[in-house]
Amino acid sequence: MQSIPPQVQSMLAQLESYQQQLQLLVQQKQKVQLELNEAKKALEEIEKLPDDAVIYKTVGTLIVKTEKSKAVEELKEKVETLEVRLNALERQEKKLNEKLKELTAKIQSAIRPTAG
Amino acid sequence: MQSIPPQVQSMLAQLESYQQQLQLLVQQKQKVQLELNEAKKALEEIEKLPDDAVIYKTVGTLIVKTEKSKAVEELKEKVETLEVRLNALERQEKKLNEKLKELTAKIQSAIRPTAG
Amino acid sequence: MQSIPPQVQSMLAQLESYQQQLQLLVQQKQKVQLELNEAKKALEEIEKLPDDAVIYKTVGTLIVKTEKSKAVEELKEKVETLEVRLNALERQEKKLNEKLKELTAKIQSAIRPTAG
Amino acid sequence: MQSIPPQVQSMLAQLESYQQQLQLLVQQKQKVQLELNEAKKALEEIEKLPDDAVIYKTVGTLIVKTEKSKAVEELKEKVETLEVRLNALERQEKKLNEKLKELTAKIQSAIRPTAG
Repeated sequence: MQSIPPQVQSMLAQLESYQQQLQLLVQQKQKVQLELNEAKKALEEIEKLPDDAVIYKTVGTLIVKTEKSKAVEELKEKVETLEVRLNALERQEKKLNEKLKELTAKIQSAIRPTAG
Repeated sequence: MQSIPPQVQSMLAQLESYQQQLQLLVQQKQKVQLELNEAKKALEEIEKLPDDAVIYKTVGTLIVKTEKSKAVEELKEKVETLEVRLNALERQEKKLNEKLKELTAKIQSAIRPTAG
Repeated sequence: MQSIPPQVQSMLAQLESYQQQLQLLVQQKQKVQLELNEAKKALEEIEKLPDDAVIYKTVGTLIVKTEKSKAVEELKEKVETLEVRLNALERQEKKLNEKLKELTAKIQSAIRPTAG
Repeated sequence: MQSIPPQVQSMLAQLESYQQQLQLLVQQKQKVQLELNEAKKALEEIEKLPDDAVIYKTVGTLIVKTEKSKAVEELKEKVETLEVRLNALERQEKKLNEKLKELTAKIQSAIRPTAG
């Protein structure tokens, strides 16, 4: 078996690092996506209630009365915050995927010529 | 020690894969069974309440008033969904157990003749 | 280095198995003890409330009105159940500790004579 | 490669032990800091409520009515307890960091002279 040249070894290490970052990003994205789905579902359910509905919210281990308008406002803010975070994560994922593609191409062209 | 023929090795790898799938299925079944038991217990407890009972439901971190009839309906749907999922998992488990049995027999008959 | 006689090896394997069982038991005991402390603390807090206090209980994701007398009764049952379980675990722990002590003595007397 | 003198080996082992303790301390500090932030946020939110606000508190799986004054008092006690614990952890962290610095210096001076 031929030994791998140092340059290629360094690129393979970088590739592995990118793959780990990507895996972490995908996990974070799934978590935010899940929270977003739940917030959207809650918003939908709260918006259907009459304006004078009895609504409580949890504050740590306490439960306090709130109003529909406030609950809807807070949920909308939460949905917006999560959407911003999700978009940021998706942009990072896209960039990382491009870097991965480029590096994979580089590694392949660095390996092939030696076989030519 | 005799080396294991490639065909048997491949069957042993398949066997291991089936066993891992079975283990995963059993875990999923236990989780769904647990959720089903909890939903059934909740349904039983809610059905015993008077029709005008004060009932709240949690919607994310919010708590909203609901009615007995709605709560019972939602719990019945939940029980039904979980029963359908449990049945599907049990069918998968049965099929996988049959495959495991067949493959184990195949492996045994592939090993025995060489000793004959 | 002298090889360990099969009898002693078998006793050492048994010893390890006992130690694993003991570790599991201690973990279960801690979990039950924690639940018991929480149930006792809740009972104490509920008993201090006036008899006509507004009390709700969670039933899965639903919240229903209950009465002080019912809440106290349910908590007392829970405390009792947990105390019975804790006592059973403590008896098992004591028996296992005795077995461990006996087996350790046996192993020591099986090793010492060979050095004499 | 030169073998490491026993004294230095023992100091390196001590260094590793300090680093593990520090890692544990930092984790505990983060946990307490998080709980403290949540308690402070809850206190701030409860203090803004009118004095006759309807407030409930969770007691295990039960929910009981409480008053704003009691809820505020309990949250203030919680914040205080967590601040005391956080301060204690920070003092421990500072001391451990000093020990780590001293030991690192000792190890370096124990290694350097042998190269001189």
